[in-house]
Amino acid sequence: MNKKTAAPVTVIGLGLMGQALAGAFLKAGHPTTVWNRTASKAGRLVAEGARLAPTVGEALKAGSLTVICVTDYQAMHELLGAGDIELDGTTLINLTSGDSAQAREAAQWAEQRGAHYLDGAIMAIPPAIGTAEAVILNSGPQPDFEAQESTLEALGTVTYLGADHGLASLYDVAGLAMMWSVLNAWLQGTALLRTAGVDAATYAPFARQIAAGVAEWLPGYAEQIDSGSFPAEVSALETEARAMAHLIEESETLGVNAELPKLIKAMADRSIAAGHGGEQYPVLIGEFVKPRDT
Amino acid sequence: MNKKTAAPVTVIGLGLMGQALAGAFLKAGHPTTVWNRTASKAGRLVAEGARLAPTVGEALKAGSLTVICVTDYQAMHELLGAGDIELDGTTLINLTSGDSAQAREAAQWAEQRGAHYLDGAIMAIPPAIGTAEAVILNSGPQPDFEAQESTLEALGTVTYLGADHGLASLYDVAGLAMMWSVLNAWLQGTALLRTAGVDAATYAPFARQIAAGVAEWLPGYAEQIDSGSFPAEVSALETEARAMAHLIEESETLGVNAELPKLIKAMADRSIAAGHGGEQYPVLIGEFVKPRDT
Repeated sequence: MNKKTAAPVTVIGLGLMGQALAGAFLKAGHPTTVWNRTASKAGRLVAEGARLAPTVGEALKAGSLTVICVTDYQAMHELLGAGDIELDGTTLINLTSGDSAQAREAAQWAEQRGAHYLDGAIMAIPPAIGTAEAVILNSGPQPDFEAQESTLEALGTVTYLGADHGLASLYDVAGLAMMWSVLNAWLQGTALLRTAGVDAATYAPFARQIAAGVAEWLPGYAEQIDSGSFPAEVSALETEARAMAHLIEESETLGVNAELPKLIKAMADRSIAAGHGGEQYPVLIGEFVKPRDT
Repeated sequence: MNKKTAAPVTVIGLGLMGQALAGAFLKAGHPTTVWNRTASKAGRLVAEGARLAPTVGEALKAGSLTVICVTDYQAMHELLGAGDIELDGTTLINLTSGDSAQAREAAQWAEQRGAHYLDGAIMAIPPAIGTAEAVILNSGPQPDFEAQESTLEALGTVTYLGADHGLASLYDVAGLAMMWSVLNAWLQGTALLRTAGVDAATYAPFARQIAAGVAEWLPGYAEQIDSGSFPAEVSALETEARAMAHLIEESETLGVNAELPKLIKAMADRSIAAGHGGEQYPVLIGEFVKPRDT
């Protein structure tokens, strides 16, 4: 795309992520207007061709699409909530970190002011923005997403999740839970193997293979959850629980942290106590969908 | 291979797994002798061509390789510990579930009696035995493994881990910790998304992609652990901790179990309190290698 055909965009908030977003739009040829409370953060971007708007209101007027990425939702409301700021007809894509309730409230607020509102989440670090590795999750009205999809592709791999504005932040935290869990399980194994003099580099390919292999089971296991039927085709939960006891004992005997193994077994034990010992692992969804003490 | 060239093998213990092991040897053309405390469990195998030995001692004499898969290490010691049982010169591969200390003790015991001893672990369910999907972990002296490798390949994908007899059971529990952690993180995400009406089948491909993607990071992160240096190339632990707080809040607000998110954050918080907030995630190894209260 060249500057004559690429749609003009505005980026509000020039932290590390905001700067990366504006930089990616510039690189893709979009006329890019930026604004930040501390204007000096725009220096590099202006040198690269961005226009620094004097006020938030001016920034919003520069194009039909505004991407905002600030500290939190309160900061967004403070910046865009002033009476003289015109949102009518604008498309606002909010990439600020927050929870699903904040996203839904912001959508209602923005739509009441006449804006098209999409809520997003960025699954990437700033240096990855502008590459296919950066996953940009989007939720909100599908026509509003589709109108901006080609512009957003300047930022990375753009994914549309659905009309519910809360979805982007829910998928975001769910994905992070997976990330931390894979890393923690790998650290647990690394700590266990270290007691036998095995270094992390030797163990890592094995852990990678298991994680990638188990990932392949998820779509099939999901069918059990959606059907609410958990026949023990592979292994019964009570069999798994005996192996969990081995993991705890091995960890404790070797002086390795056993908190993660104990939590794994505690949740399985509760499900078994509730009568699900003869069913397959995904029956544990019954424990995950409710708080601990209910 | 045909029955004239394939080495004769003995399988002791005919639970579901032992029956699968013997069946796979038979299918690969190995003359197969079996023994079980309850002889009737040998019925199907005998019909397929196995020879049922009248005593454990007779079973051991039938070939130079004996695979044992019984309830636990105590059962193995009871079966093979009788004074009239000759182990001298035999190769014994123990696929009984147990911990690394039991494996090392059994190796010492068997070697004192003149046997070649390998300790193994089966990462598969019985129906997968005999297919490439069944991973058979082996640890013990490398020449002893290499002498049996082609025979063991009848059982599945055979992996040699090292001379330390404890390695097979350590890799086994470490791999299981990864398996349960991927499943639990997926269940956490499934529970979160369910609150927004997203079914498990819709969420699963996303979880699969994240798990497989993070798995790819492990070898690189392992280098940080082995070098003991954790520069925040991707993200600092204290930044992760703020996102962990979002995961906890989102779970609690939506009435989803928050135990796993809380454990994730508690371990990160302890590492941050110990001064590692500016370092990268694998610095958490410092928490995993020690018990909770030291």
